[in-house]
Amino acid sequence: MAETIIKIDLKQSPYENEQIHNRWHPDIPMASMVKPGDDFIIECHDWTGGQIHNNDSADDVRDVDLTQVHFLSGPVGIEGAEPGDLLVVDILDIGTFEESQWGFNGFFSKQNGGGFLTEHFPEAQKSIWDFNGMFTKSRHIPGVEFAGLIHPGLIGCLPSKEMLSEWNKREKELYDTEPDRIPQLAALPYADTAHMGKLSGTAKQQAAAEGARTVPPREHGGNCDIKDLSRGATIYFPVYVKDGGLSVGDLHFSQGDGEITFCGAIEMAGWIHLRVNLIKGGMDKYAIKNPIFKPSPLTPKYDDYLIFEGISVDEQGKQHYLDVHVAYRQAVLNAIEYLKKFGYTGAQAYSLLGCAPVQGHISGVVDIPNACATLWLPTDIFDIDVKPNANGPGAKVTQGSDLPLSKDK
Amino acid sequence: MAETIIKIDLKQSPYENEQIHNRWHPDIPMASMVKPGDDFIIECHDWTGGQIHNNDSADDVRDVDLTQVHFLSGPVGIEGAEPGDLLVVDILDIGTFEESQWGFNGFFSKQNGGGFLTEHFPEAQKSIWDFNGMFTKSRHIPGVEFAGLIHPGLIGCLPSKEMLSEWNKREKELYDTEPDRIPQLAALPYADTAHMGKLSGTAKQQAAAEGARTVPPREHGGNCDIKDLSRGATIYFPVYVKDGGLSVGDLHFSQGDGEITFCGAIEMAGWIHLRVNLIKGGMDKYAIKNPIFKPSPLTPKYDDYLIFEGISVDEQGKQHYLDVHVAYRQAVLNAIEYLKKFGYTGAQAYSLLGCAPVQGHISGVVDIPNACATLWLPTDIFDIDVKPNANGPGAKVTQGSDLPLSKDK
Amino acid sequence: MAETIIKIDLKQSPYENEQIHNRWHPDIPMASMVKPGDDFIIECHDWTGGQIHNNDSADDVRDVDLTQVHFLSGPVGIEGAEPGDLLVVDILDIGTFEESQWGFNGFFSKQNGGGFLTEHFPEAQKSIWDFNGMFTKSRHIPGVEFAGLIHPGLIGCLPSKEMLSEWNKREKELYDTEPDRIPQLAALPYADTAHMGKLSGTAKQQAAAEGARTVPPREHGGNCDIKDLSRGATIYFPVYVKDGGLSVGDLHFSQGDGEITFCGAIEMAGWIHLRVNLIKGGMDKYAIKNPIFKPSPLTPKYDDYLIFEGISVDEQGKQHYLDVHVAYRQAVLNAIEYLKKFGYTGAQAYSLLGCAPVQGHISGVVDIPNACATLWLPTDIFDIDVKPNANGPGAKVTQGSDLPLSKDK
Amino acid sequence: MAETIIKIDLKQSPYENEQIHNRWHPDIPMASMVKPGDDFIIECHDWTGGQIHNNDSADDVRDVDLTQVHFLSGPVGIEGAEPGDLLVVDILDIGTFEESQWGFNGFFSKQNGGGFLTEHFPEAQKSIWDFNGMFTKSRHIPGVEFAGLIHPGLIGCLPSKEMLSEWNKREKELYDTEPDRIPQLAALPYADTAHMGKLSGTAKQQAAAEGARTVPPREHGGNCDIKDLSRGATIYFPVYVKDGGLSVGDLHFSQGDGEITFCGAIEMAGWIHLRVNLIKGGMDKYAIKNPIFKPSPLTPKYDDYLIFEGISVDEQGKQHYLDVHVAYRQAVLNAIEYLKKFGYTGAQAYSLLGCAPVQGHISGVVDIPNACATLWLPTDIFDIDVKPNANGPGAKVTQGSDLPLSKDK
Repeated sequence: MAETIIKIDLKQSPYENEQIHNRWHPDIPMASMVKPGDDFIIECHDWTGGQIHNNDSADDVRDVDLTQVHFLSGPVGIEGAEPGDLLVVDILDIGTFEESQWGFNGFFSKQNGGGFLTEHFPEAQKSIWDFNGMFTKSRHIPGVEFAGLIHPGLIGCLPSKEMLSEWNKREKELYDTEPDRIPQLAALPYADTAHMGKLSGTAKQQAAAEGARTVPPREHGGNCDIKDLSRGATIYFPVYVKDGGLSVGDLHFSQGDGEITFCGAIEMAGWIHLRVNLIKGGMDKYAIKNPIFKPSPLTPKYDDYLIFEGISVDEQGKQHYLDVHVAYRQAVLNAIEYLKKFGYTGAQAYSLLGCAPVQGHISGVVDIPNACATLWLPTDIFDIDVKPNANGPGAKVTQGSDLPLSKDK
Repeated sequence: MAETIIKIDLKQSPYENEQIHNRWHPDIPMASMVKPGDDFIIECHDWTGGQIHNNDSADDVRDVDLTQVHFLSGPVGIEGAEPGDLLVVDILDIGTFEESQWGFNGFFSKQNGGGFLTEHFPEAQKSIWDFNGMFTKSRHIPGVEFAGLIHPGLIGCLPSKEMLSEWNKREKELYDTEPDRIPQLAALPYADTAHMGKLSGTAKQQAAAEGARTVPPREHGGNCDIKDLSRGATIYFPVYVKDGGLSVGDLHFSQGDGEITFCGAIEMAGWIHLRVNLIKGGMDKYAIKNPIFKPSPLTPKYDDYLIFEGISVDEQGKQHYLDVHVAYRQAVLNAIEYLKKFGYTGAQAYSLLGCAPVQGHISGVVDIPNACATLWLPTDIFDIDVKPNANGPGAKVTQGSDLPLSKDK
Repeated sequence: MAETIIKIDLKQSPYENEQIHNRWHPDIPMASMVKPGDDFIIECHDWTGGQIHNNDSADDVRDVDLTQVHFLSGPVGIEGAEPGDLLVVDILDIGTFEESQWGFNGFFSKQNGGGFLTEHFPEAQKSIWDFNGMFTKSRHIPGVEFAGLIHPGLIGCLPSKEMLSEWNKREKELYDTEPDRIPQLAALPYADTAHMGKLSGTAKQQAAAEGARTVPPREHGGNCDIKDLSRGATIYFPVYVKDGGLSVGDLHFSQGDGEITFCGAIEMAGWIHLRVNLIKGGMDKYAIKNPIFKPSPLTPKYDDYLIFEGISVDEQGKQHYLDVHVAYRQAVLNAIEYLKKFGYTGAQAYSLLGCAPVQGHISGVVDIPNACATLWLPTDIFDIDVKPNANGPGAKVTQGSDLPLSKDK
Repeated sequence: MAETIIKIDLKQSPYENEQIHNRWHPDIPMASMVKPGDDFIIECHDWTGGQIHNNDSADDVRDVDLTQVHFLSGPVGIEGAEPGDLLVVDILDIGTFEESQWGFNGFFSKQNGGGFLTEHFPEAQKSIWDFNGMFTKSRHIPGVEFAGLIHPGLIGCLPSKEMLSEWNKREKELYDTEPDRIPQLAALPYADTAHMGKLSGTAKQQAAAEGARTVPPREHGGNCDIKDLSRGATIYFPVYVKDGGLSVGDLHFSQGDGEITFCGAIEMAGWIHLRVNLIKGGMDKYAIKNPIFKPSPLTPKYDDYLIFEGISVDEQGKQHYLDVHVAYRQAVLNAIEYLKKFGYTGAQAYSLLGCAPVQGHISGVVDIPNACATLWLPTDIFDIDVKPNANGPGAKVTQGSDLPLSKDK
């Protein structure tokens, strides 16, 4: 078995582990060093570092401290990696801990981050998903079971100082256009809850003050939340600093395109088995700015879809110009209304679309003024037949259960 | 063989054919009537009605009159269809005309509609694609051949008066926010070039003055440009007027998600074989606002992908808030730069991404402030190996050819 | 459009067409010549040359003259082809004739060829399949509709004199082991009904007397009845004579692995669009004895299977040694019994397994003394749900119809 | 985590574990009892019980005692199961032991069981495969790496007394037709090495004398070696005795259709996670004789194939009558010759075809006198491009390594 180079203790605070960090900064020391060609295992906290529990209350989702997230394992240094290289990462496997066979999904309160449909679901809710081998189901959402397309939500290399500076500058400019907005427009550096790995003292304080938050995806990859970056995929990451500094976390048992519920996919703690190689000077050889990847040969075949269209006219009937975000929101809302006809509550449907291997396609982006987006709902994940027929919905799911909700305090 | 209920003559102007129209309006008389359960064939002009020719000049793309498009065949009335029903349409087949074994793709001049990357490709260009059975290749783009995922870009039922009125209102409001913008924000009604099928005289004039343009997708479907609405798919359309009034056109031999080049996919004239049925009261039974569909069991298997990521930071480094349109543009630009390393010109790469069965996925829409979108490039369509390796690009495509360009006058 | 180099007239006897032949012999003159790189269209009779009709009697199946089959179009000569080359054939497309939108499937009488289950279905029966675009269904088999995986049952190059001699020798030896067996062990040369293309006079008589029958697949390919040799596939054929001499026929709209009903798949007349190229000396370069091929990128996705196992213990309980033929027969019989529980007659089920895109896998061939074979039944071709559940079969197909049967005279 | 109801110790002889057995007999007591709806984990020895080692000598394969195999874990009793029921088994997961990250494949000596190509490879050889997460590669076969389609080679319920008696009778009859044959025609009961689980004393002796060997697949399933019975599949097993008595073993990391090398697939020790349910009276409800199953939604996508044809004319040119076994052997030999052109030795190619997810299709079984079978070789498992082109094989694999061979003593 490959060596586990970063270990965690689920009962311990991630702040006590020097091989964990929750900000991006070039000064964070390597947690461990490996060589090109090596394969190794890294253990990861769930993205909140254990703030969410396997119970039937959404209080923990409501009260979560989002300045702490995401707890990442790393950075792993690769001998010989230099700025301009491509770091080739094979995801050889991802798994759960024997003692932690569950994951969570939730909607944040609109007061604390919100989500894609926060106007429709403004308060904290949660669903818990049990793992049975490669399958999962939830006691809060009846009538579905499916295999996980397990993947890391967040993976990438440390930024250079120049890149970090550019990130902070452009996000601050956006933030400043509407500083009082809730949810906020961007998550700016915040030293109080920063965990900078092995850094300590003044060096830590300085880095913490300017360390980029882990929330958005950026040039290096980062929090891309791409469900297809799954076990078996090969990813080509730009390298910006000596030794590369690869960090990973935010493991998902399964997720729909868009990770619409924000909190988030089916979030889990677990381990990831990686192999690394280098393409020297690869950024220039292939004109790489953002990571590229090849998908896994091993993905669940949920490919009988029912497809919902959405256009960029919002819920109030207002016309937007080629806005795919609005269009996808309409497709999602259309799917939720459809599922309600089969007995689901709105919250169940919303959570399901965030967790199941739903596809979101950009279908038309030039036919002014409407963008068109489609949501692809796999029908094989349902116990009942959810396809349309001449008689209307037949069997419906057992009602009674729903996602626990915790009102804002 | 099923009956051909709408015939066209490629040598005749579509304006001379009463079974063609190019605006949406409830008053357009049915071109033909069928019964539920019937299957039938409809012939279609290419979307421009023959304005673009199989030659090596982009003058026709530059000079195209976009107020004429799209020429649609129909409307077909279905006996018994009433507002609130769902019209179930099986696309049994789509084909080309023996005498017209080619299609076109192009970029409009920024002065005349532009396209997704009009800032990068501001002048008219064109590529011609030859059909060889189910495959296509272009003399303007070397080293690619692929099977077509043939589909109608535009299909849907006539709107009601109320719906038409709503369309015109909301699009006018958007247009008025920046009326001098080029390209324009919306295509408003324009009577001069309207073709209202069998309507004539005052009735025609009145309808032409308020008939909605065919450019955007809307609640009824319309110009969705969804490549997966292909031969073999089943679509459920909302019905808004008595007899439904199904129209179809804008056939594509193949298209990438987004139809980024706007002019457009691989555009072609041809025929489509449909079967229709009704779900009475289906809009309410299934809470349907926009069409839904089931994809075809028969689609080309180009599923070895190289995937490019893009985030919502634009070419000038400006940060946008969860803007999937910007993110997808970056993914597309990243793919173009990559392909240039293999010998393609930028225009060749751009056209190819508009024509080939490229997928565009919405990958993250909640990780503030960056949306993440991915472009999935199928690698099996290339003669050469375009996957990355340690040595950099090996074989390159034969250079010399390029897309003809016609400068603005 | 590519040129049609071999045309047929469905109302004319294939014997009157010099570009048709029904035996394999190196002396048959080329029907037409093409160059490497050319693409062209060839029209084909159904394999019986029109002996079977679109009606509700199986008399024609009972009375068919099997010494006439298969009527092949060709041979097509390829300039420069020499023995030892590989002929690369791209199947660009296959289609039906507008005036012939149907196909047939049947069981021969045990007295006249029989079939895989002739002990169970000893008399002639027939099912007729109507084509609706890319889909088909049968008035003799309720509750199924599916897209065709259209392909030629028979395609290959002319044998050399030496190869022909070897074929005749080895098949005669087998035949002679049980010359009175019904059905016969092999179909030997038979001059009376031979059609030798352009050959006439003595040359024809001589060739007819030794021309190999077209029934079995052999080293050159021939009557392989491989459903995956479909439109879009690329095949590499050994070349044995100057100019190659490619012939093709026996088009199938769809077929299950094994073509178990023998008469046969969904048999049809139609046309095939081919492109040819050469790999000089390819047989040696790649150690090729039999053809190899790459499957099409375009195949129907019927991939939700119910899989039936069979072992090499026959219907009488007798143990056979690693006999895949017996094992597959048991898997087929198991599937038939299963389908009868859903309301199908045995004949309907048998015919369906011969026509639908059923897979037959060789699952175990070493676990003495039992071979294990599996039959993969695609469940999406059925209108009803045929998967097992705790309650037993739910909805059944409408009964009443069945395959017409004609008793032996 | 589900409970592990059967544990093993890789350092202990399986004969010392009461929850293991290596013969089929209705008297073997249940090793453990579960309820319908339960899920649980079972640990399994490799099929030889540890006789083969991770080294570079084939002595252990040559000297293996095949009367000991297969060591099965079970039988597991299911409360309420009765003869005539169907036992529904969901394979929730399968995994390896952390301390045993490897598997083996080999050819038995013709003196000791042989294999599919024992005439061509008559002596013992072995390849060792290392597991890297979900991927595997072998130090004895260069240039390949692929994801495992992990599955149990052997699984099924205990036979009734009547069924056992029938098995013994028919296999003895076959054996007696050629009792001196090597390899033998069937493996008859053999008490000396029988392990009958919890049975002891006279009861054990009696059962051991008549217990059926585990080698062949039979009505109950058993040693089917079906690669598609993989993690994620659902199987419906006939029940013949009270409580059912489900046993499982012979885990494979990967296997090609046919398990042609006999020793066998990539053989491994490991664990399997199962869930059981009952369909009362299901054998009659669905006319079930042999198990049926639904394949997993999670299988490796190695679907770019190069397909080799074989017909039932053997290596000596002798004609066989519709013999799929002979036809598949020719397809396999054709593939081996092809791979040798890319630098593989014959033994490497043979082993690879037994281990990789190769498909074996029954393509034609009625075209007298030749059966046609096809071997589907996935091309994506190779580091080099193995597809044909005009120039002949390009890059070849690194030569020098080969499978160790141990000569007969």
